[in-house]
Amino acid sequence: MAVGLSPPGKLFPVSGVTLGVVSAGIRYQNRNDLLLIEVNEGTTAAAVFTQNKCCAAPVLVAQQHMQQAPVRALLINSGNANAVTGELGVNNAVGSCAAVAEQLGVDANQVLPFSTGVIGEQLNMTALYDGIKSVVSDMQEDNWLVAAEAIMTTDTVAKATSRRIEVDGQQITITGIAKGSGMICPNMATMLAYVATDAGIDQAVLESFTRRAVAASFNRITVDSDTSTNDALAVLATGRSSLQINAVDDAAAEPFYCALESVLIELATAIIRDGEGATKFVRINVTGAYSEKDARAVALSIAHSPLVKTALFASDPNWGRILMALGKSPIGRLDMSKVDINIGGVSLIEQGEPAQSYTESQGKAVFEQPEITITIDLNAGDVDDHVWTTDLSHDYVSINADYRS
Amino acid sequence: MAVGLSPPGKLFPVSGVTLGVVSAGIRYQNRNDLLLIEVNEGTTAAAVFTQNKCCAAPVLVAQQHMQQAPVRALLINSGNANAVTGELGVNNAVGSCAAVAEQLGVDANQVLPFSTGVIGEQLNMTALYDGIKSVVSDMQEDNWLVAAEAIMTTDTVAKATSRRIEVDGQQITITGIAKGSGMICPNMATMLAYVATDAGIDQAVLESFTRRAVAASFNRITVDSDTSTNDALAVLATGRSSLQINAVDDAAAEPFYCALESVLIELATAIIRDGEGATKFVRINVTGAYSEKDARAVALSIAHSPLVKTALFASDPNWGRILMALGKSPIGRLDMSKVDINIGGVSLIEQGEPAQSYTESQGKAVFEQPEITITIDLNAGDVDDHVWTTDLSHDYVSINADYRS
Repeated sequence: MAVGLSPPGKLFPVSGVTLGVVSAGIRYQNRNDLLLIEVNEGTTAAAVFTQNKCCAAPVLVAQQHMQQAPVRALLINSGNANAVTGELGVNNAVGSCAAVAEQLGVDANQVLPFSTGVIGEQLNMTALYDGIKSVVSDMQEDNWLVAAEAIMTTDTVAKATSRRIEVDGQQITITGIAKGSGMICPNMATMLAYVATDAGIDQAVLESFTRRAVAASFNRITVDSDTSTNDALAVLATGRSSLQINAVDDAAAEPFYCALESVLIELATAIIRDGEGATKFVRINVTGAYSEKDARAVALSIAHSPLVKTALFASDPNWGRILMALGKSPIGRLDMSKVDINIGGVSLIEQGEPAQSYTESQGKAVFEQPEITITIDLNAGDVDDHVWTTDLSHDYVSINADYRS
Repeated sequence: MAVGLSPPGKLFPVSGVTLGVVSAGIRYQNRNDLLLIEVNEGTTAAAVFTQNKCCAAPVLVAQQHMQQAPVRALLINSGNANAVTGELGVNNAVGSCAAVAEQLGVDANQVLPFSTGVIGEQLNMTALYDGIKSVVSDMQEDNWLVAAEAIMTTDTVAKATSRRIEVDGQQITITGIAKGSGMICPNMATMLAYVATDAGIDQAVLESFTRRAVAASFNRITVDSDTSTNDALAVLATGRSSLQINAVDDAAAEPFYCALESVLIELATAIIRDGEGATKFVRINVTGAYSEKDARAVALSIAHSPLVKTALFASDPNWGRILMALGKSPIGRLDMSKVDINIGGVSLIEQGEPAQSYTESQGKAVFEQPEITITIDLNAGDVDDHVWTTDLSHDYVSINADYRS
């Protein structure tokens, strides 16, 4: 069902990062559901987490550990989100970090816990502790693909990408994985994503790069406007290559940042391409906005409209619904008589009215494509923005009415 | 498919109001699609309109006419919304008022035009003018039911209600009709509704009553978070009975207002019961909020969540999704550890965690009912609010992916 999404291509190992997976039987049987990522000493790490106020125990613990000590390991389980599990949930998350720490000979607060899956059930700690004991014997540098598979829930395709590029004369690698398909909406690092590089990146620089790249990628995607309780993204820089970036204005900073951003955009859009029930991959551009806030509000109003989304599913270029969703967007300055709308290169609306040149068959041809770009020019200023989204199909309803997530 | 909604019961005529319907063939064939309502001289009228900035030509014209002259007639067509139709659309709306005015011997600006149906097509003015000529020979006091039927689009049941009550020793009548099923979200008078009474109500009092009653009814409903381009509600007071209300503190004001509000709530909730694809009628109460804004934001965040709505469709008491939707609501003060949630009398969440007493079978029994009440107590203040909404079903997708509205 995923739109234009193939299984991952070649994934380059990242020096300083080993990964292990195991079938711990936390919820799923006979498939890997536990992933351990270990990084060498001296690795810098930056992470962003869900802004949902109902956030899961591992999110709270990971945020705390990040502030206390340098990261040495990440433990991720699928099948159970350890969310709305109270004090016991927090203790279980801390306990799993301690168990990993014991196996690896590091401190418990150097381990970050992550969980994804069903909300409101306590973790099966016997299964988890047994899994932790066995996963450490599987640690390898080239386990990125099985790692991507181990963290899947309703995903239909594993999401991973890799770049090996030359920056400032040094060859470096960036490899990342992500999972996510439903309960996807901006305002955080959506769902789980882990990206590592062997470049050495100063802590403050890495944090700045991560914030900026997340703004350009994960915070621009929405499947269903719903924000997960467990979202997290971590970027790890092991410093094993010869490239070292100490400041955002280093010569190598910009080319490295661009590569990092392209990895995050590829992972974020893979989540949309594999959005629950998705039959369309849609980019909504807003141009000529008065402010960034206006541009984003208009893009999200259109992306979240159930009537626009069902029209996309129907391949119906129903511009009345697009205008309706534009008109209801919560922005102060909106002159409908100045608005131009273009779909896939075809002019649909000019100055608020159907374009003279537009024909229904032109619109239909664009909307029948699996990938659609809708551009709304507000002609009110010079700010642009965009989001990526999906349609709303029968399969979205089936997946979420039949599957107890 | 409508939830607990029967065809209208007895509808009392309102002295001073006559209604006529005709099959004008504007879009539908062989069904009435044009309604004319005429009111006697001296009638006061109040109306509220969509706040969608992409509003239809008849909305613009009706708002203008309301300011210019006392209302004598309302012309409503279904099948074509006359929205996004530019200057020609406005001219057509004005032209239809002039045609009605000529037939009734009133001024054109004493006629209010309303349209509902497909967006972006010009009205068939030949059909409309012919319809206006014939509809005037059908004007009767007891045409309320056929009037409710003539304005339906995707509605499956006609929506109308009537009260004959004694206020201050005087018998008065309030009768109203409404239409609406999709593109339903607060922030206006949702879809079309017309309510008339034979009480005499001072203009300022009627406006105040209308605003207050709409806030308690139409502005508390949402099917799909989408706001129509054509929404309008009008309340007409003919003054033909002996009851005259001149100020909001008249002795008769409060009992009259309560009857008016109950008519509006019945019509508004009928729209939800007949919401597109609805299999559930859901009331979401928020109690103990810090402010009205917080209470409404939380109620709407839950009512608009596709994951909550699909769980409702599945009769799945998936409280993880309710907490997720609560946690993502855009309010500043939210202490999840204070939150209590109750569904249909069953305690689900206490102080942010699953209630000790709660069992899955209790929750399932509540969610299998066609009518569900979810109460979220934020324990943060003393403000309460509520909204009414529906689930998200396969039929919602079918109706909106197959039907070109």
